[in-house]
Amino acid sequence: MTGRPSRRRMLGFSGASLLVGGAAGAGLGRVATAEPSQTPPVPPVPFHGRHQAGIVTPVQDRLHFAAFDVVTDDRAELVRMLKEWTVAAAAMTRGRPVGDGAVGGLPQAPPDDTGEALGLPPSRLTLTIGFGAGLFEKSGKDRFGIRDKRPAALVDLPHFPGDRLDPARGGGDIAVQACADDPQVAVHAVRNLARIGFGTVAVRWSQLGFGKTSSTTPAEQTPRNLFGFKDGTENIPGTDAGLLDDHVWAADGWMAGGSYMVVRRIRMHIETWDRTSLLEQEDIIGRDKSEGAPAGRSKERDKVALAALKPDAHVRLAHPDTNHGARILRRGYSFTDGTDGLGRLDAGLFFIAFQRDPRKGFIPIQQSLAGDALNEYIQHVGSGIYACPPGVNQGGYWGETLFG
Amino acid sequence: MTGRPSRRRMLGFSGASLLVGGAAGAGLGRVATAEPSQTPPVPPVPFHGRHQAGIVTPVQDRLHFAAFDVVTDDRAELVRMLKEWTVAAAAMTRGRPVGDGAVGGLPQAPPDDTGEALGLPPSRLTLTIGFGAGLFEKSGKDRFGIRDKRPAALVDLPHFPGDRLDPARGGGDIAVQACADDPQVAVHAVRNLARIGFGTVAVRWSQLGFGKTSSTTPAEQTPRNLFGFKDGTENIPGTDAGLLDDHVWAADGWMAGGSYMVVRRIRMHIETWDRTSLLEQEDIIGRDKSEGAPAGRSKERDKVALAALKPDAHVRLAHPDTNHGARILRRGYSFTDGTDGLGRLDAGLFFIAFQRDPRKGFIPIQQSLAGDALNEYIQHVGSGIYACPPGVNQGGYWGETLFG
Repeated sequence: MTGRPSRRRMLGFSGASLLVGGAAGAGLGRVATAEPSQTPPVPPVPFHGRHQAGIVTPVQDRLHFAAFDVVTDDRAELVRMLKEWTVAAAAMTRGRPVGDGAVGGLPQAPPDDTGEALGLPPSRLTLTIGFGAGLFEKSGKDRFGIRDKRPAALVDLPHFPGDRLDPARGGGDIAVQACADDPQVAVHAVRNLARIGFGTVAVRWSQLGFGKTSSTTPAEQTPRNLFGFKDGTENIPGTDAGLLDDHVWAADGWMAGGSYMVVRRIRMHIETWDRTSLLEQEDIIGRDKSEGAPAGRSKERDKVALAALKPDAHVRLAHPDTNHGARILRRGYSFTDGTDGLGRLDAGLFFIAFQRDPRKGFIPIQQSLAGDALNEYIQHVGSGIYACPPGVNQGGYWGETLFG
Repeated sequence: MTGRPSRRRMLGFSGASLLVGGAAGAGLGRVATAEPSQTPPVPPVPFHGRHQAGIVTPVQDRLHFAAFDVVTDDRAELVRMLKEWTVAAAAMTRGRPVGDGAVGGLPQAPPDDTGEALGLPPSRLTLTIGFGAGLFEKSGKDRFGIRDKRPAALVDLPHFPGDRLDPARGGGDIAVQACADDPQVAVHAVRNLARIGFGTVAVRWSQLGFGKTSSTTPAEQTPRNLFGFKDGTENIPGTDAGLLDDHVWAADGWMAGGSYMVVRRIRMHIETWDRTSLLEQEDIIGRDKSEGAPAGRSKERDKVALAALKPDAHVRLAHPDTNHGARILRRGYSFTDGTDGLGRLDAGLFFIAFQRDPRKGFIPIQQSLAGDALNEYIQHVGSGIYACPPGVNQGGYWGETLFG
């Protein structure tokens, strides 16, 4: 885009003729009001509310997660971006482009919206924001005057046995979880937030998830992970207000109504797993592969009998009864990112968990999993923990309770 | 899976009790015959036929492409694998697991199928195989006695201006294009072929595509790429037998009824593009962003007026009339593979084109695109060319006309 003055000048003329002709302008309007499709449209997930969407929302099919570093020290600039992001997020989750028009704005200016989701339905898009420790303090510096507001529950995660974390796939001052039934819609949303935030934030790392592995809807079967198993059946249902209050929603200060998000990029050694016997696989997980029933039972949602499980079975060590009742709400996704240098698929689980307090959720459960038989087949290679503020009311903005 | 003899012994006992109880066995059968869903099921794409599926098949939503190196010099072993692959591919494209049972085989053995697609519909899965130059000769060696059968059209691609090819994302002795409407089904298929081929082939590189960018169905609008544009409108329709015979299907020798596949991993510099004015974007592509109409026209499929396009517009340089009638059948997909080291999304287009002869298809078109205004915003970083044999009849196998 630099060094092309002659093109730009030529374009000035084309722009004039287009505006006079009016054809392009009319086109823009048509796309913005797409014709209804034959099947009844799936309604958008409301953006506004007491809690952020994308936590208890029935899990969508696809994920684009992105973590950003804030590259400015200017609080006003950061808040301005958060306000812009909020307006854009509210539009995109309704299936609308960013900005006023379909491809938006003046022809002589970059479009307000990048355009690749034009004509696509909202696809149940949700955008969920979280704040990392670096937003509160970085290199000893209180950049935005919020150091004292760092919640006690936003701990630095301890080292867990077996961790092999890549710093290039961890952390970040701000995280955005974009979930949608169409990956193009999720990718479009993250990309447009990155574009709006240019100069204020920079993408630190991101992850595409192609298939959900969790359900927060008890009537649904749990989708299978890349080991071919249903896992995480004992998830917190998105509909159980009592459990959500006890285990998911934070209650204090500016985080009241928010939640803490822990993400882990878990590489799965699928080639090794695939050469393991069915019985060993079932023993390691603690469920049968076909139905997903816990050992000694016949249906996925039958009550787990801890005594029927091997001492190092995954289900046993992750179970609330093994962890003083610790529970999390999981929204994990499978990923496949090409190939590693050894002819193996770089595949696994992008684990996402929401909880009221990670010190009573993910951390004790993960510590209990130190003895998990599954550890021979997996490795945690990326990690992040973020404080997700409460939801936004009409006219409000992401982080208002923190910065307002 | 190594060094766990005690686990294995324990599992022997569990296996016996499961078989006596019969619960697990019954479970397997239930999954294999999944209940019909509420909406009418989408029929599978037939695997057998004169041509391979996945070329003229209406483009599915998602892609998993994988290129393998053959790690044996034993022709019989290679042919045995190709026969096993064919049986597995025919099963998977029908929505069936690999092997006899749902999770397959003896409990004491690794499952025949890895399981993550159990219960999912066929999702219009197609698997399309192609043979790279390395299958015919490698390091001067005629490993499989087929050196003389390398088709003249299976050329080594020339260097194109601007190419910055990563050898780790190119080539391969055998390529498989897996397309499906559900990415889990496509990933499952590639992963199971890799598992079956263990010891005979190793994955060299692979690519997930999250969104189709091409249509071979004239009634459909062309899906948008990550620049927000419809591109490749002048695609060869999968229904035009005359055009397909002229431009897609090979006619000679063992390749009769086959086609040549060229793949290019094209990185798109979306951050730079997003800061370019709408008019400049439209000028570079040669279409308006909203409708996708060629310059000076009002609808996407209106006839292109070459004279209305800038001399370096993408549509102009790629157009058959600019290239002595050269045409290709495109099946490209958008990709997003996390982030590069510079805070930018590693995103772009995984370009796939089928043609009767690359010397009269992709190569002259790509040479014409040397002057493309778009080149400032894209870079070719991966490349492959493969001879895709004709389709398989019942009882036949992939590559039969080459090895039989």
